Amino acid sequence: MAYRETEKMRLRKAAARQRIAECTYECVAEGGFRNARITRIAQLANVATGTIYRHFESKEDLFAEIFRQATQREIDKVTKALATPGSATERLEKALRQFAERALKGPVMAWSLIAEPVDPKVEEERLAYRKAYAGLFEQAIREGIEEGCIPDQNPRQSSTCLVGAIAESLVGPLSPTQIGQATEKETENNDQLVNTIICFCIQGLTGTRR
Amino acid sequence: MAYRETEKMRLRKAAARQRIAECTYECVAEGGFRNARITRIAQLANVATGTIYRHFESKEDLFAEIFRQATQREIDKVTKALATPGSATERLEKALRQFAERALKGPVMAWSLIAEPVDPKVEEERLAYRKAYAGLFEQAIREGIEEGCIPDQNPRQSSTCLVGAIAESLVGPLSPTQIGQATEKETENNDQLVNTIICFCIQGLTGTRR
Repeated sequence: MAYRETEKMRLRKAAARQRIAECTYECVAEGGFRNARITRIAQLANVATGTIYRHFESKEDLFAEIFRQATQREIDKVTKALATPGSATERLEKALRQFAERALKGPVMAWSLIAEPVDPKVEEERLAYRKAYAGLFEQAIREGIEEGCIPDQNPRQSSTCLVGAIAESLVGPLSPTQIGQATEKETENNDQLVNTIICFCIQGLTGTRR
Repeated sequence: MAYRETEKMRLRKAAARQRIAECTYECVAEGGFRNARITRIAQLANVATGTIYRHFESKEDLFAEIFRQATQREIDKVTKALATPGSATERLEKALRQFAERALKGPVMAWSLIAEPVDPKVEEERLAYRKAYAGLFEQAIREGIEEGCIPDQNPRQSSTCLVGAIAESLVGPLSPTQIGQATEKETENNDQLVNTIICFCIQGLTGTRR
């Protein structure tokens, strides 16, 4: 009986932790890490603020966890896009396009993940995840060289050029000062931006005019 | 006489401020912002730690100032390279090459400026300076399109691809865990890295195989 009680408590604890994480995600998606206040998160999760610190050592730890969960979701999407049929160049284009389009659809969260000035603890996570993206692209570039659709080059070095180009070119359009109601004009601009990014990246890799 | 005294004090204050800034620069160039401790800076500048806070409101303000000074130096170099004779593509290549080579020669400082996880106050400076770099590249791309050496494209969007590609591809090689004594092998790798970056960026802009 004692064991069951403990198991029940463990589950309840895990559920509370998950609820806090979800409410934090919601706050960050609304206004970035800077506007995600513990009091507001506690209110949304219907717990006392002290409860949050029983689940997460600090606000920074909570934010780092949210950062990991949200970024892992994007990493999974890129992995999936790179595993579809087609040449390596086509698969890279697909992955890059999807990444950019997803970012432009959820601009506040994307900005928080890519560029919002954050605590060094969260920034460490960001650097680690950028390596993960680069690793995925590196593998695809390697395959492209083998297939012959990408000229010989250092796949690791080129992969970081890709990560940088796509992340940086999204930062401006994603910055909260730029975000308003999406108008027809903006949607058109977004399409143009995605095309510029894809064009620059694929040309950068292949040296072939698109 | 009262005025002269005040002037003398002003000059002395400015000199002390400058000395603190220089010693901070030295510390950051040695071990990044994370290892630049106020006690060590005070020791180097031969002042009491309290004196530092009479000149700078906080450590973050001091670091932001160093960030600005050091980055402005790089901005000036890029501006100068872009103003040399030659086609826009040649000038862009020169500016990018010089930026990368300077970074690889002073890797700790460059890493601190480009990628070290820093306080949000310093990170704000970083985002502002990335815009400044992009602005310089944008102008050169615009000139290249007019000259006909760069195909028509959105110069602002492409400029951010350049900034991202060069910054991100330097982050890995510059990371402090990678920095040791420069061996012949490393110098060779650095040359290859610079070539990869230039190749990716110029191909990205022009769509012409190099």
